[in-house]
Amino acid sequence: MNLSMITAAAKRLSGHARVTPLLNAPLLDAAFGKRVFVKAECLQVTGSFKFRGAWSAVSALPAGTGGVLAYSSGNHGQGVALAAARHNMTAVIVMPSDAPAVKIDNIRAYGGEVVLYDRATEDRDAIGAALCAARGLVLIKPFDDAQVIAGQGTMGLEIASQAAAAGITACDVLVCCGGGGLSAGTALALSAHAPGLRVRTVEPAGFDDMARSLAHGERLRNSATTGSICDAILTPMPGEMTFPILKQLAGPGLVVTDDEAMQAMALAFAHLRIVLEPGGAVALAAALFRDTSPTVICSASGGNVDAAVFQSALARYA
Amino acid sequence: MNLSMITAAAKRLSGHARVTPLLNAPLLDAAFGKRVFVKAECLQVTGSFKFRGAWSAVSALPAGTGGVLAYSSGNHGQGVALAAARHNMTAVIVMPSDAPAVKIDNIRAYGGEVVLYDRATEDRDAIGAALCAARGLVLIKPFDDAQVIAGQGTMGLEIASQAAAAGITACDVLVCCGGGGLSAGTALALSAHAPGLRVRTVEPAGFDDMARSLAHGERLRNSATTGSICDAILTPMPGEMTFPILKQLAGPGLVVTDDEAMQAMALAFAHLRIVLEPGGAVALAAALFRDTSPTVICSASGGNVDAAVFQSALARYA
Repeated sequence: MNLSMITAAAKRLSGHARVTPLLNAPLLDAAFGKRVFVKAECLQVTGSFKFRGAWSAVSALPAGTGGVLAYSSGNHGQGVALAAARHNMTAVIVMPSDAPAVKIDNIRAYGGEVVLYDRATEDRDAIGAALCAARGLVLIKPFDDAQVIAGQGTMGLEIASQAAAAGITACDVLVCCGGGGLSAGTALALSAHAPGLRVRTVEPAGFDDMARSLAHGERLRNSATTGSICDAILTPMPGEMTFPILKQLAGPGLVVTDDEAMQAMALAFAHLRIVLEPGGAVALAAALFRDTSPTVICSASGGNVDAAVFQSALARYA
Repeated sequence: MNLSMITAAAKRLSGHARVTPLLNAPLLDAAFGKRVFVKAECLQVTGSFKFRGAWSAVSALPAGTGGVLAYSSGNHGQGVALAAARHNMTAVIVMPSDAPAVKIDNIRAYGGEVVLYDRATEDRDAIGAALCAARGLVLIKPFDDAQVIAGQGTMGLEIASQAAAAGITACDVLVCCGGGGLSAGTALALSAHAPGLRVRTVEPAGFDDMARSLAHGERLRNSATTGSICDAILTPMPGEMTFPILKQLAGPGLVVTDDEAMQAMALAFAHLRIVLEPGGAVALAAALFRDTSPTVICSASGGNVDAAVFQSALARYA
């Protein structure tokens, strides 16, 4: 895993993934007394940054690869399903049965085959491994894969150039964090192209394995596997490949509550006119309710949210 | 009013207005059997394209101008209020008392002074003229102003280059239409920079003055002044300056229902992850429910919507 893989991924993504805008809003800044810049990955193809890593990995497979498999809470799965379809490969996506309906529906609409499992009683790794063996599929892991991290790192390349255009040379870059693929890729890209910009991971309370692992110096596991609305980022522990990168390059991790994520969704609706899912709103929540610096950049990592959840965020906080 | 004013406006807007993305979504295209591209002006500064025209007009005023006045259902007013504040001018915005709360609140937050009037019994032109005379303010009309049309035309310049990048050389460009400023400016820009792209105006049923005027060959008035949720585009009749431009350059106007606008809001939420207000969703509605061509571009002109209205669109159609 190195920087040249990120620039190579950027070339493969060109014309397929979107260069997402870095948004800001005068009234949001005024209300919170700081400058907040939001990297709107909810506007990415398939509605989350995951398409970057998925396209990077799928487009790096040898010619003649017939099919791929991914396990996913739904955003990685959507990215892999669409990237595979556009490469004329089949895609099998192993998902928890309590994933948001919109994510399951979209994966099927992209042409992916969905295999549901019970998060409490079944092991997705075992299910995936068995399917790969039986059907000759190539596994594309959600974060512990060098090409996936390289793809996510292209967001960091874009932030480096957009921050420079906005005259920002030093600030924290808050990143919504599950296994750490987006955070690690972004940290690598920024370390080379915008060394004054420091990544900090953001997680939901109760699923702060990365924050605790960074503080402790080694990988720690979450005790719970369910219990937050931030479905996209409820991973059991930091990745083997992502953690060493973040240990070296990232600042201390931040943690926000589910309620703060919902508030950030309502604020993004009102001030930025973008749709965020709970797990895609935690970095904005941290930017508004935790971070104390005058300027901050945050990722708005995804916008695949069931309408009822979004309505409930608006009803409570808009 | 000529093309060089649009390119001059683009220079003045650079670094102040945002180049908004041209979005599309594979699943939206699949569901409707066509390619739909959406110019996301809801992501523009102040949440609508109106900031373009406002900045263009305010930045063209002579040095030493103390203040400006605008009458507006709320989007032009937000654009003028922020543009004036950033030029250290005062801004007085004359608004109907039934304007969406979010628009009134935002104008005040941008530093604008709001003067409310009753749409049924009072004349905004008279109120505005009296205030301009008494306080030495310069009137910035919402569409019948050459610098305003020039500013809105910068959206057309962007569409021309974004369409070319997407390989689109001929298609209709559907534009949400009130008085016709955005439509006219865009039509002028496209006629020079992308002559295969033809503007068609889109209006809500009952407020189709532009469609009827284009069909008839002269300016006709709406009989109603209220009665649609598309508050942003309920103008009484086409502009004196905008109509001749559209008569020469635009195709036949399109008309959609309020319900179709609400459906388009729900589809934009689900597939594009952007927030649209009803009047900003009529062009997308026409693209999906009226237009029959294989490829279409539409403006998503604004996203300043009260949360209750947005929730109701989701509850009914998402």
